[in-house]
Amino acid sequence: MAVTAAKPLPKKRSDDKSPSRWVYLFSELDLVEQVTGTKWDNVKALLGGKGANLAEMTRVGLPVPPGFSVTTQACNSYLENGNTWPEGLWEQVIHALSQLEEKAGKKLGNAENPLLVSVRSGAKFSMPGMMDTVLNLGMNDAVAEGMVKLTNNPRFVYDAYRRLVQMFGSVVMGIPDEPFEDYLTEVKAKKGVPSDVDLNADDWKHVTAKFQEIYKEHVGSEFPQDPIKQLEHAIEAVFGSWNGKRAIDYRNAANIPHNLGTAVNVQMMVFGNMGNDSGTGVAFTRNPATGEAKLFGDFLMNAQGEDVVAGIRTPRPISEMEKENKAVFAQFNDIVSKLEHHYREMQDVEFTIERGKLFMLQTRDGKRTARAAVRIAVEMAEAGVITKQEAVLRVTPDHVSQLLHPQFDIDSKTQAVKAGRRIATGVNASPGAAVGVAAFDADLAEKWGKAKKSVIMVRPETKPDDVHGMLASKGILTSRGGATSHAAVVARQFGVPCVCGAEALDINVRDRVMTVGEVEVHEGDTLSIDGSTGEVFVGEINRVEPDFAREKYLQKLLGWADDFRRLGIYANADYPVDARRAREYGAEGVGLCRTEHMFFQEDRLPIVQAMILSEPNSAEEATELEKLLHFQYDDFYGIFKAMEGQPVIIRLLDPPLHEFMPDHEQLLRQVVGLRLMGNRPNELARTENLLAAVEGLREFNPMLGLRGVRLGITRPAITAMQVRALFEAACQLKLEGVDVHPEVMIAVTNHANEVKVVRELIIQVADEVMSRMKVKVEYKVGTMIELPRAAITAHQMAEHSEFFSFGTNDLTQTTFGISRDDAEGKFLLNYVEQGILPENPFQVIDEEGVGYLIQLAVERGRKQRPELEVGICGEHGGEPKSIDFCHRANLNYVSCSPFRVPVARLAAAHAALKDKGQASKEDL
Amino acid sequence: MAVTAAKPLPKKRSDDKSPSRWVYLFSELDLVEQVTGTKWDNVKALLGGKGANLAEMTRVGLPVPPGFSVTTQACNSYLENGNTWPEGLWEQVIHALSQLEEKAGKKLGNAENPLLVSVRSGAKFSMPGMMDTVLNLGMNDAVAEGMVKLTNNPRFVYDAYRRLVQMFGSVVMGIPDEPFEDYLTEVKAKKGVPSDVDLNADDWKHVTAKFQEIYKEHVGSEFPQDPIKQLEHAIEAVFGSWNGKRAIDYRNAANIPHNLGTAVNVQMMVFGNMGNDSGTGVAFTRNPATGEAKLFGDFLMNAQGEDVVAGIRTPRPISEMEKENKAVFAQFNDIVSKLEHHYREMQDVEFTIERGKLFMLQTRDGKRTARAAVRIAVEMAEAGVITKQEAVLRVTPDHVSQLLHPQFDIDSKTQAVKAGRRIATGVNASPGAAVGVAAFDADLAEKWGKAKKSVIMVRPETKPDDVHGMLASKGILTSRGGATSHAAVVARQFGVPCVCGAEALDINVRDRVMTVGEVEVHEGDTLSIDGSTGEVFVGEINRVEPDFAREKYLQKLLGWADDFRRLGIYANADYPVDARRAREYGAEGVGLCRTEHMFFQEDRLPIVQAMILSEPNSAEEATELEKLLHFQYDDFYGIFKAMEGQPVIIRLLDPPLHEFMPDHEQLLRQVVGLRLMGNRPNELARTENLLAAVEGLREFNPMLGLRGVRLGITRPAITAMQVRALFEAACQLKLEGVDVHPEVMIAVTNHANEVKVVRELIIQVADEVMSRMKVKVEYKVGTMIELPRAAITAHQMAEHSEFFSFGTNDLTQTTFGISRDDAEGKFLLNYVEQGILPENPFQVIDEEGVGYLIQLAVERGRKQRPELEVGICGEHGGEPKSIDFCHRANLNYVSCSPFRVPVARLAAAHAALKDKGQASKEDL
Repeated sequence: MAVTAAKPLPKKRSDDKSPSRWVYLFSELDLVEQVTGTKWDNVKALLGGKGANLAEMTRVGLPVPPGFSVTTQACNSYLENGNTWPEGLWEQVIHALSQLEEKAGKKLGNAENPLLVSVRSGAKFSMPGMMDTVLNLGMNDAVAEGMVKLTNNPRFVYDAYRRLVQMFGSVVMGIPDEPFEDYLTEVKAKKGVPSDVDLNADDWKHVTAKFQEIYKEHVGSEFPQDPIKQLEHAIEAVFGSWNGKRAIDYRNAANIPHNLGTAVNVQMMVFGNMGNDSGTGVAFTRNPATGEAKLFGDFLMNAQGEDVVAGIRTPRPISEMEKENKAVFAQFNDIVSKLEHHYREMQDVEFTIERGKLFMLQTRDGKRTARAAVRIAVEMAEAGVITKQEAVLRVTPDHVSQLLHPQFDIDSKTQAVKAGRRIATGVNASPGAAVGVAAFDADLAEKWGKAKKSVIMVRPETKPDDVHGMLASKGILTSRGGATSHAAVVARQFGVPCVCGAEALDINVRDRVMTVGEVEVHEGDTLSIDGSTGEVFVGEINRVEPDFAREKYLQKLLGWADDFRRLGIYANADYPVDARRAREYGAEGVGLCRTEHMFFQEDRLPIVQAMILSEPNSAEEATELEKLLHFQYDDFYGIFKAMEGQPVIIRLLDPPLHEFMPDHEQLLRQVVGLRLMGNRPNELARTENLLAAVEGLREFNPMLGLRGVRLGITRPAITAMQVRALFEAACQLKLEGVDVHPEVMIAVTNHANEVKVVRELIIQVADEVMSRMKVKVEYKVGTMIELPRAAITAHQMAEHSEFFSFGTNDLTQTTFGISRDDAEGKFLLNYVEQGILPENPFQVIDEEGVGYLIQLAVERGRKQRPELEVGICGEHGGEPKSIDFCHRANLNYVSCSPFRVPVARLAAAHAALKDKGQASKEDL
Repeated sequence: MAVTAAKPLPKKRSDDKSPSRWVYLFSELDLVEQVTGTKWDNVKALLGGKGANLAEMTRVGLPVPPGFSVTTQACNSYLENGNTWPEGLWEQVIHALSQLEEKAGKKLGNAENPLLVSVRSGAKFSMPGMMDTVLNLGMNDAVAEGMVKLTNNPRFVYDAYRRLVQMFGSVVMGIPDEPFEDYLTEVKAKKGVPSDVDLNADDWKHVTAKFQEIYKEHVGSEFPQDPIKQLEHAIEAVFGSWNGKRAIDYRNAANIPHNLGTAVNVQMMVFGNMGNDSGTGVAFTRNPATGEAKLFGDFLMNAQGEDVVAGIRTPRPISEMEKENKAVFAQFNDIVSKLEHHYREMQDVEFTIERGKLFMLQTRDGKRTARAAVRIAVEMAEAGVITKQEAVLRVTPDHVSQLLHPQFDIDSKTQAVKAGRRIATGVNASPGAAVGVAAFDADLAEKWGKAKKSVIMVRPETKPDDVHGMLASKGILTSRGGATSHAAVVARQFGVPCVCGAEALDINVRDRVMTVGEVEVHEGDTLSIDGSTGEVFVGEINRVEPDFAREKYLQKLLGWADDFRRLGIYANADYPVDARRAREYGAEGVGLCRTEHMFFQEDRLPIVQAMILSEPNSAEEATELEKLLHFQYDDFYGIFKAMEGQPVIIRLLDPPLHEFMPDHEQLLRQVVGLRLMGNRPNELARTENLLAAVEGLREFNPMLGLRGVRLGITRPAITAMQVRALFEAACQLKLEGVDVHPEVMIAVTNHANEVKVVRELIIQVADEVMSRMKVKVEYKVGTMIELPRAAITAHQMAEHSEFFSFGTNDLTQTTFGISRDDAEGKFLLNYVEQGILPENPFQVIDEEGVGYLIQLAVERGRKQRPELEVGICGEHGGEPKSIDFCHRANLNYVSCSPFRVPVARLAAAHAALKDKGQASKEDL
């Protein structure tokens, strides 16, 4: 039931010029620009990416084998007219070919002086699934014989010929590769040799003949000896491949329009395997792993491009090229330096030396690691090659994220995979690599954690009262739940690597064993998990640790990013240690301090439970709240101090009370057991009472139950206690000379009256504390906007709120009517796979639905209160696409987990720069 | 923390005329109209309701005791200027008094010919909490003696005098009633008599003297002997009572503006207790119980108004008045007939005969039962007194609702209350009166129900798998849950009377006993519950049964209503019997047929469970679905047939699958028990497997989980089965010549792609069935709009939907982020009480939030597809205020439970008529 609507074709633009020119030589770029204008994007649209680059290199004066491009418009015209060559195209191809022959000094099909060419497709965007390459076109029986005479190298010639027959057969005529490959295997078996290199000239000649037979069998006619026929068919095949099924599927998936068409590039062949004065290689203008500004690459003499990557012969480092041919090496250095300056980006080039002459075959922006991306961008900007804006845009948020999490050493991981130690792959829920011993419950994880053991906490799924164990662990592994399950959310919040929903794992908590196939992992066994990829390994894998303080290039880049962004970057931090880390990472405030996380701590939970079980507004409740007050005071004191001079938004109690209570099912089991045993009446009575209390708090849909402000209004003493602790801490710090900016936030509101009522209580308690402590602290009161009704009535909410903070987790849940905990494993990820939802809305803000409500709320809220401060504190606050939306929605800030702060700083800068019309790397 | 914001005072209108006239005689209505215009509402605003009516009666020439009104503007001016009499007011009062004296032929304070007057407040709207009445004003020691001489009836005179002292003391001077009452009790005790009537003239004279002492003690000065002073104080007291706390609270609660002010009516006293030629009575121009057009009332000769209602003497039927005074009776008949024609409404009048002369003291629209309201409206319209529109507007939806539910006989109920048999009062969740024996579980209720016993099913709360028992019961009683708990919703749907959340009841299901205080109700004991009032009784109370077919007046009225309304009225019906009833009640289609209710039936549930436990898309699943297909075919066949010629909207499966499974907790208890016993391994294994399956289906927030379309996409075979059954039934009927209009509805959608995918499946199955059965059936495919995202993206949903149906229950839950099941008992009703929410949004549509989304969806949906059919099928579809909203929101129809159809027909007519500027009864 997949949704795969083809994108509609846009109407033909009326200003489309119907070009009489369908073909351009690589050397005619200036001519091309007369038609397209000089905008690179338009040049690429006409010549395709590859053709444009070859033309550009040619214009710069680099030694590029001559050739020509048949334009994308020719392709479109051909396809639109029922696979008919447009008028003039063939004539232009023939004319271009004769110009090419002239430049090459060779002629296609001329046995005495033969020209061989390659034919390649090349669309505007690089696109797998389209016709690839036909090499050595122009070869036939006569040419082969002539070339043997010319080169005195029959093995080279027939190797080249048999390649043409196979490539032409499979790529152009659609013959499967198997018959060719099968025959080759047969030949080697007959000779008793393992490898192609062991075959000699005669072997290849026979193979060529046999391949021509295979060709005839499948096609029904002879392999065309006429090179012009070869060329005609090859060009048609490239055109036709544009509408191949795989190409269409790819364009649908990658959002590429279907009306672009592909160009066809015809280029003179050059050979690096024509002797010891020939060679071939690939190189990067800088180190793609570290970013160091030093040429990096490999080459081989007397070899073809394939040989460098195939690993049959060991290539040599590029620096040694100097020894082989000093002049060529100097020329090469000069060329790549020019290329990097020309393209203003680190280049990945391919080259061939044919009989001492250097040819550049390809240049393109080089792929690189996150570390290299950052260093290259910074150094190029410092060298004045690119602007700081460009540098910022060239680093992706993913790059930053990768740099800030420990990663497995590639070699160590590769070995583990080979050794079969990778036992499962789950959801890559929180990035980073972790190694530790398996602990099957939170208490043990905490105990071992305190004993300085590295622990991987393993659970079918986690719950709020597992958090102490999760915090004590180096990694978290679950067999159930998706990327926004409890485990995942907490893990990301605290920067703990996490793999969740690894369904292959059968986790038996009772027996303390995890099984997958034949493998058993017992408690205490060592595991390694990669939260960036979702992989789970038995045993240890070596790691590379991150250190933000030492990431000098990143820090410089983010400093520039800070200058460009408009959004503020806050962090969600519940403890002083989080707040300090957030600040170190560049946070400008705390956008969400969740007071309930403090309640879950081991030393407080019994007090919290006693408070819950007490009668509302009773003396007992007051006693327990008084105890909690002291804890909360310390919490707030610590956070305010850590965030001196910056705003700290404290959210009043949010979750339903039963989250703090013992597990209902466990109590039920105990009661049933105690009843059947019948010999412990006191324990039974006590457990029954507790069970009854827990049942009283149970809810069918706790997400939509008695929580947040509803709780704050139902049990105002809890609210009052929290507010008192908050203001006592703030006042005390003010008295100590610390600059504090508390903001009190009310959660789960859906009606302005809720805000009004609690706001009045807050003001009353604050006044009481400040007058008692004889000091004034400036503060704000605001509300979460996390329910659709709150967003819709934002103008009313704003009457009583100085700030809004969008809780996009809950807002997404209620707008979609989807419970994240229930949906992700059961249907949500399927929905994304089937294309029903474009993305998981818990990861990327759903702009159409949730985004509509956010924009409505911003608009209505600011209309009521123009100075209203608006931010977001849901998980989306650290996700780049969502940050881009927040920028466009005119929010004041985003707040995210401390570990995401650097990512958010960069993403916010990208959003601002894009807003000014600059495209970022991830858009391209 | 209650929210009781005083409503802001509107600005004084600039066109307010500052009248020099503060006082008008009852006979000066024409003069009043020169100031106010003839609009009755404006006259009432100036003179108050009572004053305006007295003036109107005077103008019509009825014998009204003369008097005058001090205007509401005088009151406002007095209050605005710090309780200062406005200029000219006192002079005008004195002048009016002299005119009154002239008309009466008596003088205030003149002992020889004394005028006594009453002073009453009278605002535009009748308003409890304001100053009531001072009678006999003008009496003093001298006047009393003079009157004794004149009447020769000292008992009458001193009884009147002591009443003035007490009334003036308490009402005007604020003395508590206790000292007066205590003394009276003391006097009677001393004399050894039980009743006031046993006191003689001397006694009353002494009481009067003692009352004057009490007055002096409390006020600090003598009771004013000057009648003019009495009048001045009385008028000031009326003015002041406008701003009394109770009056302000009442106005806040009843939404009455605070700036209206009250008038003061001063009127000559007349006495019905001046001898056997005097008398007093009350009468209705028609029978207020049945509506019959025949004078109805009571009278007593030689008596005061109080005596008629106090029950000390038995009043006589009004018809007997003819025997007492034929002329007066004829005059009276003539007057009330005039009054009814004049006011064009059944009147409730008070009259007094003083020495053979008839005086009309009051006329007002008479209160009446629902039955009477309908008959009166219809008969008055048929007589041409009012229009049909007016007739429709004069009957309230509540009237209709009352008529269609069995009700307790008033006498029987009163006796039961007196006998202490009313044991609790809960939420009046589903109207109607029910009597039956208590059954503490659904199975027993069903068993007894089948055995033709009348059953009241008693549960702490109900769940979906209790439905079979609920359907077999005459009434439902729960101790937990509010007006939209499961019990309440199901009960209303099926028209079963229900009282829920009767928290005083301790229901012990295990021991089969319900306790409240000392009362124990065992299984099988008889209970009576009143779902209209929430009362719970032990024992039987007699009932009056409704019968729509016999409600000829109601049917006529609703026929008129049908002509006026624009909204279509559909019914929610799951079974053919419902559909037939809906049609009988006037439904024009089925707006919601919930296929899951069919799944819950006893003979199907095991098949449903087997289907759920089978592997999706397995042979086993197919087998079970095939069995279900036959059941569903029969269901749909029956419903389509019952609704011949009308549309039937079938909703595909909606709830999460675990609702069909055994209870998790029960299974858990069993497993724990079986494990401990250890002697039944097979049963343990089986139960463990079932438990595991149920656990696999469990959800944290099932409301937001795998249900509706999510299920339909995850298990498409279920969808296909339902659609096949539906079209096979429809095609079969078409072949049989029955006109069918199926519409297929998809539930819980939030993205257009969900609709698209399922719509494609529906079309595919429909095509398959229709081509196999060789017949074409016209049908529609549409979607529920019950999640905020669906509403926001309605333009996209409409691309794939021919109709929308708003599921306002879920839409309210998600828009508010409130789970109805959890919230109502725990905080929602408190919210309404505290004024945080103006109303329970599950009863009345929240226009600001949910209504916003509805309007947005209608607008966006119709923009995409102008012919889009839009309705509502949530509980709100039968609620009058919500129906009014649906009319304004331009919906095509509302769909509600069959029992609410007549109510909805009327409410829809009201909405349409109001839209044209006509006010309905409930607005006044």
